[in-house]
Amino acid sequence: MATETKNWESLGKSKLSSINNSIPNKWRISSIPSVEEQRDVTGPFIQKLLSKNEVEITETDAVGIVEKTSTGKWTAEEVATAFCHRASLAHQLTNCLHEIFFDAAIEDAKKLDKFYAEHNKPVGPLHGLPVSLKDQFHVKGVETTMGYIGWIGTFMGKKGTGKEKVFESEMVKELRALGAILYCKTSVPHTLMAGETVNNIIGYTTNPKNRNLSCGGSSGGEGALISLRGSPVGFGTDIGGSIRIPAAFNGLYGIRPSSGRLPYEGMANSMDGQNSVLSVVGPLSHSLRSLRLVVKSLLSQQPWLHDPLVHEIPWRDDQEKQMLDIIDNGELAFGIMKDDGVIHPHPPVRRAMDMAARTLKKLGHHVIEWKPPGHERGAEILVEVWKSDGGADIHGSIGLSGEPLAAQVADIYGTGVTEQANASKIAALNIAKREFQKEYMEYWNSTVDLTGTGRPVDAFIIPSAPFAAARPRKFKYLGYSGILNTLDYTCCIVPVTTVDKRLDVVDKDFKPFNEQDKDIAADYDPEVYDGAHVAVQLVGRRLQEEKVLALAEHLGDALKVIDLDE
Amino acid sequence: MATETKNWESLGKSKLSSINNSIPNKWRISSIPSVEEQRDVTGPFIQKLLSKNEVEITETDAVGIVEKTSTGKWTAEEVATAFCHRASLAHQLTNCLHEIFFDAAIEDAKKLDKFYAEHNKPVGPLHGLPVSLKDQFHVKGVETTMGYIGWIGTFMGKKGTGKEKVFESEMVKELRALGAILYCKTSVPHTLMAGETVNNIIGYTTNPKNRNLSCGGSSGGEGALISLRGSPVGFGTDIGGSIRIPAAFNGLYGIRPSSGRLPYEGMANSMDGQNSVLSVVGPLSHSLRSLRLVVKSLLSQQPWLHDPLVHEIPWRDDQEKQMLDIIDNGELAFGIMKDDGVIHPHPPVRRAMDMAARTLKKLGHHVIEWKPPGHERGAEILVEVWKSDGGADIHGSIGLSGEPLAAQVADIYGTGVTEQANASKIAALNIAKREFQKEYMEYWNSTVDLTGTGRPVDAFIIPSAPFAAARPRKFKYLGYSGILNTLDYTCCIVPVTTVDKRLDVVDKDFKPFNEQDKDIAADYDPEVYDGAHVAVQLVGRRLQEEKVLALAEHLGDALKVIDLDE
Repeated sequence: MATETKNWESLGKSKLSSINNSIPNKWRISSIPSVEEQRDVTGPFIQKLLSKNEVEITETDAVGIVEKTSTGKWTAEEVATAFCHRASLAHQLTNCLHEIFFDAAIEDAKKLDKFYAEHNKPVGPLHGLPVSLKDQFHVKGVETTMGYIGWIGTFMGKKGTGKEKVFESEMVKELRALGAILYCKTSVPHTLMAGETVNNIIGYTTNPKNRNLSCGGSSGGEGALISLRGSPVGFGTDIGGSIRIPAAFNGLYGIRPSSGRLPYEGMANSMDGQNSVLSVVGPLSHSLRSLRLVVKSLLSQQPWLHDPLVHEIPWRDDQEKQMLDIIDNGELAFGIMKDDGVIHPHPPVRRAMDMAARTLKKLGHHVIEWKPPGHERGAEILVEVWKSDGGADIHGSIGLSGEPLAAQVADIYGTGVTEQANASKIAALNIAKREFQKEYMEYWNSTVDLTGTGRPVDAFIIPSAPFAAARPRKFKYLGYSGILNTLDYTCCIVPVTTVDKRLDVVDKDFKPFNEQDKDIAADYDPEVYDGAHVAVQLVGRRLQEEKVLALAEHLGDALKVIDLDE
Repeated sequence: MATETKNWESLGKSKLSSINNSIPNKWRISSIPSVEEQRDVTGPFIQKLLSKNEVEITETDAVGIVEKTSTGKWTAEEVATAFCHRASLAHQLTNCLHEIFFDAAIEDAKKLDKFYAEHNKPVGPLHGLPVSLKDQFHVKGVETTMGYIGWIGTFMGKKGTGKEKVFESEMVKELRALGAILYCKTSVPHTLMAGETVNNIIGYTTNPKNRNLSCGGSSGGEGALISLRGSPVGFGTDIGGSIRIPAAFNGLYGIRPSSGRLPYEGMANSMDGQNSVLSVVGPLSHSLRSLRLVVKSLLSQQPWLHDPLVHEIPWRDDQEKQMLDIIDNGELAFGIMKDDGVIHPHPPVRRAMDMAARTLKKLGHHVIEWKPPGHERGAEILVEVWKSDGGADIHGSIGLSGEPLAAQVADIYGTGVTEQANASKIAALNIAKREFQKEYMEYWNSTVDLTGTGRPVDAFIIPSAPFAAARPRKFKYLGYSGILNTLDYTCCIVPVTTVDKRLDVVDKDFKPFNEQDKDIAADYDPEVYDGAHVAVQLVGRRLQEEKVLALAEHLGDALKVIDLDE
């Protein structure tokens, strides 16, 4: 029995070998230190494995890269090669990749260089910019497994569709048209429904800043890869925090746009067709301005002409300018919610929230306590939506191979299909969601009387999660991120600091709200967490991407330069 | 048995008396001629029952009215009184009202006049404009029955909610803030799911232009009332044609905006929470510019701050200007689809389509044949969505009183609740819809190669329905309007002509597509139809309200002045 390998296991191993074999020998790391030896593999650790030129290229942000590639200072090929190299290292350190197609990337880069040589101009605003993609995007030449063994060698679990390795998602086409270079697809928890990244193909994706911890999920591979600067900017998706959790856990900016702003058309998904709460697609990056670059560029492609769910809302310079004018010449107002009344944030998250609030006050802005209605109810609605098909979709995909469901997902979906909601129940859920949104919106409107600016708050700030990052198997609460999916608000992760075990000590006088709160508080250990990234979420109303990006940049920049002890 | 009155019957009769008793004695019509005596009760017939001043006021369009009320030329009170009088007559002629609140309207008008006297300016862009509302809007002081006997004396079938006769829908608040005068709510088929207007309270609403025919549905009371100029502009809703069918049947302009443009928040509805295909709200009026006035005014209220389903898209002057520039200085391109391959339009509708095409050509525009994919499939998706709860919602409301379901609705929903779709089936339906939208959108994009303008078609034109108006119990096909709900396209009814029995003769060589087509063709009778309004639908992409209004006005104006025989 011990020697017998199950079919799903051998399929998974074979796929893993194929992924790992795509890494050129010259880029292999001979030996990887243990977590105890080397907790943090970002920065100096990974830099030592690269040439000086490669470090310079890969530590330039997306805006900086296209400045160089669009003026002939760097070739697309040298940029692509540097990122392929660094992504290879990142994968070896964290298991962050599902698909590697470096050869195609270099070929594409050469074509861009040829174009530039002939025309002396870039093909588009993302000329030669490497962009990584979560393994939900279909890209020609490679497959999409979404971590499912049963999807290997198929098109989303089906054989003979004619789409295998040929079909491309809408946004992939648009990124190519803009001049982006696609070179890898990143790891996800199978099913996508987890705050950690684990599946039976690549195993577990760790957090490169603190390898005791998870990189987050479900866009976890993006988080780990970008954290290690194996990508300047990448795209994830979010139906409960799946862009924001990996962004927060990896010290990145990450925006969850409202549904209908960026094109999801033609992507793989879990529970596709469930439209009570829509999953959305959005970018993660080290720099805020890189997010703006790719969002603005994508909107220039008029995605509403190719995706029926995208609204005709181009990038609005006037809205951005209006916000920048207030930033430069006026006073802003922010709501601050230190906890949601259900789960207390861990000490480092409390400190980060405090730093954000104090920074905004030092900038001369107004800060009010954010006391909105029913966060607990909002999160419950989300979980009910997730469970509406009784797990039929995910158990269907898991069942294709007979692989075991990851424990992190089984926490929500159990081990088999349960009863489905019917049309009346789904309608009631949609009404509950709409009523919650309406109530929250009117609370927001009501803050006009409290801010002192003559406007309701411009944004509010809440923790990204109760923890700086999750310890493996301990991502236990999604209320802080999930509530914003129910509300469909635009929100952006802003990195604040890192855990400092001397400052972020266990609170001995802690009084839990409830048993779960007590349980989650017990997961905090300053020794384990030391060094991990800590972030906050900045939240705007629906479809306010321009404003939210401007405000997130304002706060993020200020956090870097303002001395709170002065 | 014959003398025993059922409870629902007596409730219905009592409600009807209460409606009719709201009409002041001085405005009662002593005797109404039979259909044979007086087929058409619009124009001269109704004018004779009004003073010259009342005729002048009520035959001025919404834009003209606010020009007068905003400059003190007319008082809000005299305008409101004139419309209350004419609406009273309209109701007596066609059964078009469910709720009458003239006293409140006059009180509101007096307040506006007081404001004007004090400030010498209007309260808003709709100062003193009477606006009629379909009986889905909640207005304080009156109830909302939606034609259900079981909703009488309740709030949407529930007692003791505290909202009865107090709660107001979001758009009602916005209309009041803009200065509009609310004075009546108009009749609907109970359930809203019919192309005729019939219920057990008011009976049947007839078509005032040709009383042999239906006024359409489900915003049928609006159609009849506005046709008789008992309202300058009113709001209906549309989930299969319910704005457009009454607009077309009554010679009116009517726009079905895309979902998420105007606020539906806080309105009564059937199958509320069903979100695969959303019902939308929009205006009907004799004049196109009146539609523009109310849409633009409502958007100035920033409805996205009070309705979670409205997108932040203000009125876009630039889009309108761009279209007007092309109208004035360039060439447009239109797709024309004479039939959908399922049901042939009747002779007068074919003539109207031909007139529209020839008019556009005379204006120098390009006209191409519109050959999109799968209209039949698109309409089937809509009907499946409608049936997804197995009729649970509508039979629930019907069951409150035990009243019989109108035959027009029973055609779709049978006599009791059938099996509900589950989450997986609804998801599959949502995917089918999205795929259909995507396919259609790419067909539209592909017309760039055919138009000669360098752009895909600016709009396409299809019949509103196969018939000029439905004969009672003969509204048998909704494909022409319903397809656009599945697509969520912006579309506007453009009145073209009236049936002329000499021109619109029965086609003796008619070759039906199928049995239903044969059956519907047989419903055409030039003698019965003579004089009825005939219209076409002008269709733009999603969320293109500014463009569609500009194009509809362009076509509508040209139809009035261009002589096609020259």
